[in-house]
Amino acid sequence: MKFVTAHAGSDVFVGVVHGKKVVHLSKADETIPHTMIECIELGESFIEKVQRVLERVRPEWMYELHDVQLLAPIPRPTKNIFCIGKNYADHAQEMGGVADRENIIVFSKAPTTVIGHEGTILRHADVTDQLDYEGELAIVIGKKGKAIPKEQALDYVFGYTIVNDVTARDLQERHKQYLLGKSLDTSCPMGPWIVHRSAIIEPHALHIETKVNGEVRQSATTAQWIFDIPTMIATLSKGMTLEPGDVIATGTPAGVGKGMNPPCFLQSGDVIEITIEQIGTLRNVVK
Amino acid sequence: MKFVTAHAGSDVFVGVVHGKKVVHLSKADETIPHTMIECIELGESFIEKVQRVLERVRPEWMYELHDVQLLAPIPRPTKNIFCIGKNYADHAQEMGGVADRENIIVFSKAPTTVIGHEGTILRHADVTDQLDYEGELAIVIGKKGKAIPKEQALDYVFGYTIVNDVTARDLQERHKQYLLGKSLDTSCPMGPWIVHRSAIIEPHALHIETKVNGEVRQSATTAQWIFDIPTMIATLSKGMTLEPGDVIATGTPAGVGKGMNPPCFLQSGDVIEITIEQIGTLRNVVK
Repeated sequence: MKFVTAHAGSDVFVGVVHGKKVVHLSKADETIPHTMIECIELGESFIEKVQRVLERVRPEWMYELHDVQLLAPIPRPTKNIFCIGKNYADHAQEMGGVADRENIIVFSKAPTTVIGHEGTILRHADVTDQLDYEGELAIVIGKKGKAIPKEQALDYVFGYTIVNDVTARDLQERHKQYLLGKSLDTSCPMGPWIVHRSAIIEPHALHIETKVNGEVRQSATTAQWIFDIPTMIATLSKGMTLEPGDVIATGTPAGVGKGMNPPCFLQSGDVIEITIEQIGTLRNVVK
Repeated sequence: MKFVTAHAGSDVFVGVVHGKKVVHLSKADETIPHTMIECIELGESFIEKVQRVLERVRPEWMYELHDVQLLAPIPRPTKNIFCIGKNYADHAQEMGGVADRENIIVFSKAPTTVIGHEGTILRHADVTDQLDYEGELAIVIGKKGKAIPKEQALDYVFGYTIVNDVTARDLQERHKQYLLGKSLDTSCPMGPWIVHRSAIIEPHALHIETKVNGEVRQSATTAQWIFDIPTMIATLSKGMTLEPGDVIATGTPAGVGKGMNPPCFLQSGDVIEITIEQIGTLRNVVK
């Protein structure tokens, strides 16, 4: 199942993709909440409700996918987006370092950064000369947990989406801690949807590809991750409670603009497409 | 005016301190919202409403301060708490570095860290051997803004509170980016209240003192800051929208446990009291 947050007319709703259509879930079942985080908080009963809706789906509950505007599946996370740094050895290398295989690097992006599929990435020319892309698989947490053991970690995943961890390299470097360089408005395109975990058999073997203006820049597989999902979730939750709707961007592979020779940063008009196997394509234009 | 979020019986409410009492604001005026962030979002009209309440205050709207439990004034920020690193030169030095006078260091704490005055700081003995305190003045943002000029920055401040930026030094160092070491549950005591900016004539000359078990460990003044409030707000908002209720912890002076010889970290039973002139005292016990 692919879950979207969509905009049609003046209505923002949670939907499930059904062929080339999207089913407006709270229209189909009024016990289904209006926001993605509330739906996720329902736990398994949300999935059961959606299954029942799909068994008796009616035309009046559906929109053509191309008639709605997709927002980020979680348009406003309730905290910063967690991001894993240097989770691919060859990306660590292109950034001029060596991956630390013992200690995960975790930083964050403010929730004001989030935009959806086809949303515009602002160029921020007055703030940065080095705007860069980072295609990443993102985990969406499904239930509250602390000190989650690795063996149970996948039970805490609601699903998967795509994130572009857009980064101002000059700010990232200059301010040492990454927050400012990672938190420019519109620097977290997310979507186009969340694929429920039941639809992804092996999240540790998904091909990921980023194109800029049609040119392949990143091509890798999540099998190359240094830290797998159980390790990420266990480490983050060791002393910190994770909550439904938390987003963890899992790190980017080699091929970012800064790693090119010479470095090649984003310019107005650039089109970035990130495709992850079994999920889809997140497309955004810089302006 | 001192604003609290308080708990009495099953009711959580926003109050204003009135002598040794606290006025339940939405009981006194039903157009005043129930949460601090919504109150702040009202802007100047919130302050006007509170002034009118205080002019005609009635006993049935009031509690004795010692009869209510103070929560953090903003019990659940809508994003991570922003924190400024190394804003006092002598603290940068005790941490084994040199302060960067050009580029502000900004990192964050997850909102799940927030507790109130007299809330318990968990010792997290299974996660860290090096739990440490950091007494700090915190700014609460009053209105939405981006690219805020320094000259207007103070207009974007709603008020001031105290934060203890509790830090697991071992995690902070091991994971390079500070997020994990700064985000253990209960590691952001905040309060006891927000003092409205109109009551603080010069936020850049406030004495700040931290005691552990009665012993003075930090004693400084915000006049020692490397970066002042206009610089912090202008830098953060350069490409990132600030929102009402955002909290910016402004950095800690010298005298943290890690800087002692030998280092002295927090243990169960330790009492930490942070006092800032014109604001009050934030007290918490480690357990």
